[in-house]
Amino acid sequence: MQLIDGKSIAEQIKKEIAEQVEQMLAQGLKRPHLAAILVGHDGGSESYMTNKVRACEQCGFKSTLQRYDEDITEEELLRAIDGLNNDPDVDGFIVQLPLPKHIDEQRVIEAIDYRKDVDGFHPVNVGRLSIGLPCFRSATPQGIVNLLDRSGIDTRGKHCVVLGRSNIVGKPVAALMMAKSKPGNCTVTVCHSATPNIPEITRQADILIAALGSPAFVKADMVKPGAVVIDVGTTRVADATRKSGWRLCGDVDFDAVAPLCSHITPVPGGVGPMTIVSLMQNTLMAAKHTIYPA
Amino acid sequence: MQLIDGKSIAEQIKKEIAEQVEQMLAQGLKRPHLAAILVGHDGGSESYMTNKVRACEQCGFKSTLQRYDEDITEEELLRAIDGLNNDPDVDGFIVQLPLPKHIDEQRVIEAIDYRKDVDGFHPVNVGRLSIGLPCFRSATPQGIVNLLDRSGIDTRGKHCVVLGRSNIVGKPVAALMMAKSKPGNCTVTVCHSATPNIPEITRQADILIAALGSPAFVKADMVKPGAVVIDVGTTRVADATRKSGWRLCGDVDFDAVAPLCSHITPVPGGVGPMTIVSLMQNTLMAAKHTIYPA
Repeated sequence: MQLIDGKSIAEQIKKEIAEQVEQMLAQGLKRPHLAAILVGHDGGSESYMTNKVRACEQCGFKSTLQRYDEDITEEELLRAIDGLNNDPDVDGFIVQLPLPKHIDEQRVIEAIDYRKDVDGFHPVNVGRLSIGLPCFRSATPQGIVNLLDRSGIDTRGKHCVVLGRSNIVGKPVAALMMAKSKPGNCTVTVCHSATPNIPEITRQADILIAALGSPAFVKADMVKPGAVVIDVGTTRVADATRKSGWRLCGDVDFDAVAPLCSHITPVPGGVGPMTIVSLMQNTLMAAKHTIYPA
Repeated sequence: MQLIDGKSIAEQIKKEIAEQVEQMLAQGLKRPHLAAILVGHDGGSESYMTNKVRACEQCGFKSTLQRYDEDITEEELLRAIDGLNNDPDVDGFIVQLPLPKHIDEQRVIEAIDYRKDVDGFHPVNVGRLSIGLPCFRSATPQGIVNLLDRSGIDTRGKHCVVLGRSNIVGKPVAALMMAKSKPGNCTVTVCHSATPNIPEITRQADILIAALGSPAFVKADMVKPGAVVIDVGTTRVADATRKSGWRLCGDVDFDAVAPLCSHITPVPGGVGPMTIVSLMQNTLMAAKHTIYPA
């Protein structure tokens, strides 16, 4: 069994990005700039944001953070987005989700100029991903594909089973895994809450991607020996032995499943670090106008 | 075995649309208007267009057809599209594909105002379909979902296997079949040219959607008894007994497979007529501004 070390792969990619930024600066180009909007003081969002700012520093990006109180109106938020859409120094930006309930998240997502939508949530980017056109890919699916690629895992003709059909993980990772590309070219099955026979299907998986958000859902008897297992779950579960009182738990019963696998990602330290790196890759592409012309 | 009579279901839906148009006119609203651009004189495209114009008449729509010669430049075509984008009388329009090789099809598709894109090919509509938002759905996948719905086939928790990963059929029908909706809520597997063990997978299908464009590909030993089989294939094969010299052949070996099925679509007369009806439904929704505000 080989552990897929997402943390170390992520560090390596950030180094590569930092080198490209150095080259851009040497050519007289401006420093890539990622902006973020954070509404309210949700603990999870705050810690994601801290990690994103740190990743920007490691990559040599400029980062700016606009903070707003919980009671910002939708109109005020849309104005802030418009400001970033029209700021020529900002290459890409994100609005940290979730937003307060009085704000229409989908309206906010669609207000972002898709050419600066480095989270890849705008329908134009989602549609282009589905069609197989260059686009800003949403961070977690792109992180998974990068992990497989950097781990030298051959995906062509393999059966990839995805657990979960969310808009930000399950559906887009299914699209990437079935795409006529490398990695890709998998036969793909998507299972979800309405699937009656999940174990029967997961046992057929050469590559199993678990993105249900259900702690330790995948047991040893659900995995084919020799499978590659990618664990996207990050649920906080109570743990009295930790100072914080909790630990992150994946969707896979790691200790029981790992001995069966050819490759497996740990939680934490697997998919998580790669997600932020995807955002950095998208920001670099935005700054270089790799996908959409200036 | 029950034959799914797409032709008769399509006639029924067109009648329902015509009734709605009558109501719109009685309310003093304008007649829905579908426009089409046809470039060149491809035989298949001409006959599709004839069928679309006839369907417009049956639904009580106004239809207009702009014809251009094969040698139209991309700029001229884009100007024609812009004219339709800005014509307030035109509710929706299509550009018949394929286009001559000197024209960038994707650029043409993206030039269409997504609010008039009744073919559902614009990335905004593709993306919204994937996310599960209201949108113009592309015609064949929507036709398939309509057939299942009107035939009273329960899809929830069933295993749907899709053969083919094209942008206009395989990928969008997979998205619709896995969606949290009715019809929908299927476990979905997508197979394609890189799948090494197609028969093994199709034998698990409760619902099999064949969209490979490979005549009589699906044989009896690839189908589970009692399955629902939807045949999207429409390949012209030589047939000396026909006046035309050819007949349409589906992706399913119909005579061998039909006796095994609970339901099956014929070719022709199955999915084909439903495809045009989807276009009519999209045009009605465009005229009513059901999806995008006026």
